[in-house]
Amino acid sequence: MTADDQTHNAIELTDGQEGAALHNDFSDWMRHVQAITEAALIAFLPAATASPVRLHQAMRYAALGGGKRIRPLLAFAAGELFDAPDAMVQRAAVAVELIHAYSLVHDDMPCMDDDAMRRGKPTVHVQFDDATALLVGDALQSQAFTVLAAIVESVDPTRQIAMLRLLADAAGSAGMCGGQAIDLDSVGVHLSLDALELMHRLKTGALLRASVLLGATSGKTLSRPETQALEAYCTAIGLAFQVVDDILDATADSATLGKTAGKDAANNKPTYVSILGLTESEKLADKLRNDAHAAVAPFGDKARRLRELADLIVQRKA
Amino acid sequence: MTADDQTHNAIELTDGQEGAALHNDFSDWMRHVQAITEAALIAFLPAATASPVRLHQAMRYAALGGGKRIRPLLAFAAGELFDAPDAMVQRAAVAVELIHAYSLVHDDMPCMDDDAMRRGKPTVHVQFDDATALLVGDALQSQAFTVLAAIVESVDPTRQIAMLRLLADAAGSAGMCGGQAIDLDSVGVHLSLDALELMHRLKTGALLRASVLLGATSGKTLSRPETQALEAYCTAIGLAFQVVDDILDATADSATLGKTAGKDAANNKPTYVSILGLTESEKLADKLRNDAHAAVAPFGDKARRLRELADLIVQRKA
Repeated sequence: MTADDQTHNAIELTDGQEGAALHNDFSDWMRHVQAITEAALIAFLPAATASPVRLHQAMRYAALGGGKRIRPLLAFAAGELFDAPDAMVQRAAVAVELIHAYSLVHDDMPCMDDDAMRRGKPTVHVQFDDATALLVGDALQSQAFTVLAAIVESVDPTRQIAMLRLLADAAGSAGMCGGQAIDLDSVGVHLSLDALELMHRLKTGALLRASVLLGATSGKTLSRPETQALEAYCTAIGLAFQVVDDILDATADSATLGKTAGKDAANNKPTYVSILGLTESEKLADKLRNDAHAAVAPFGDKARRLRELADLIVQRKA
Repeated sequence: MTADDQTHNAIELTDGQEGAALHNDFSDWMRHVQAITEAALIAFLPAATASPVRLHQAMRYAALGGGKRIRPLLAFAAGELFDAPDAMVQRAAVAVELIHAYSLVHDDMPCMDDDAMRRGKPTVHVQFDDATALLVGDALQSQAFTVLAAIVESVDPTRQIAMLRLLADAAGSAGMCGGQAIDLDSVGVHLSLDALELMHRLKTGALLRASVLLGATSGKTLSRPETQALEAYCTAIGLAFQVVDDILDATADSATLGKTAGKDAANNKPTYVSILGLTESEKLADKLRNDAHAAVAPFGDKARRLRELADLIVQRKA
């Protein structure tokens, strides 16, 4: 049942690509990391043929073959800062993506957002059923910790425990779940810009932050200045991510987004666009991108991918 | 957000009791462990006054002030085998109880068992609402890992990671969630005794096993014979627990159980009583109790509490 008697090596692609760090072009690097992430998810999720089959099929349905993999990209980009071993950064990337995938499954359920489409296909409770969706989310969360708690050679166990603590804190009531709870309480309520920021710092920011810090910590225990620089980067991209989400929700169509557009306005949820207006929201996103660049300037060229990801987060169209 | 810069000491009661090991009488010992568990849950759950307040109140409503605390009792009893430090065994006990509490919250939801009463009070989704119940379960699961991943002095970090892995495996699709999924698929289906055993080995057995192994591993890394002896104990009490649950569901009233009695028959769910009949089920429970005693005989007097807990599991009336 446990994996005590084996250690885990890194997933390798068979297409001859040697490692993410070798890719100079951002699009190539991104596609490579997405492919590595998909391969690692396939490897680290229970097989679809293993009992209970329906649950495992639904877990794989929820986690595989879709999404932009922003969190794994952040983990890999931050791992590059400190030459993190592939085996650990892959597990960090998969763990944050599994937490993200579980949160989407539960968010989409009828008792939450009641959404029928996600990533261009039916949501888990529509494709399977509500009870299965509940269990899929629960089991994906556990799986994230299973993946991150594996024996990984050449990683200091004290550092690995710190990573597990970081993930648990980011997922729980002081992080993502806490943000969801504030979101629930905010429907139809007038929120100040500060209150909106707090909600998003927890709801999406905490897991984006964990992605960056887990990727970096895969390489070494961070010094205080390193932590502070990465925290500033995370604050900027976390807010930028949400501002852009709100802009897209207000301006893009459902087919482009792969999910229902315009839901926030329909649900009378406060957004950056509803509070600041579209033009000011776009200016804010651009300012946050600059903040993110400035935060990682001390890392020099090694932070290239983190800067490019800040650009991606602000410029994305879906 | 993380607790990297502090280590955690054991919760102490202020009534002058010095430690669980000093109590010779089983009832006293049990009450002491239950009190320590309650105090540790109170300490390790987010404060009810911390934001988001409603979520934290609901988490505490779900986890505090009720339940027999069978899993913490098993963890403490197994910890006594190897003189486990209080600080670690308390965290192990709280972690398994938080996983148990989260599973009850989600099980009771309308899309699962749709139960209105639990531990003699309204279930979380009745007292709060469905969305909050969903988040409470999710956040309690995260909190279990937060609690177990804390820095604990004098515990080998490699052993602590093994404990985290054990908990994640027990909670996920190879454990508790997997058992729930099989349970979902078994309603109205004829199950063989073997299939029923598999379902329960995952659904309840996996977490009971984790409780024992986490308690023991709080003290030391287990040798193969020690693991085998405890595994045999866990198999016996895990099945005994479920056989007795089925007997109680068929024979006790809702007021005694603190939850709705007779639900399995009403839902046409297979049970030991429906397959074996009442008399054979009672004989099986007694046989399993003897198996549990035999399994831990090699540990001698230090396994006293484990033997007494096997008795409790079989003789309980609720």
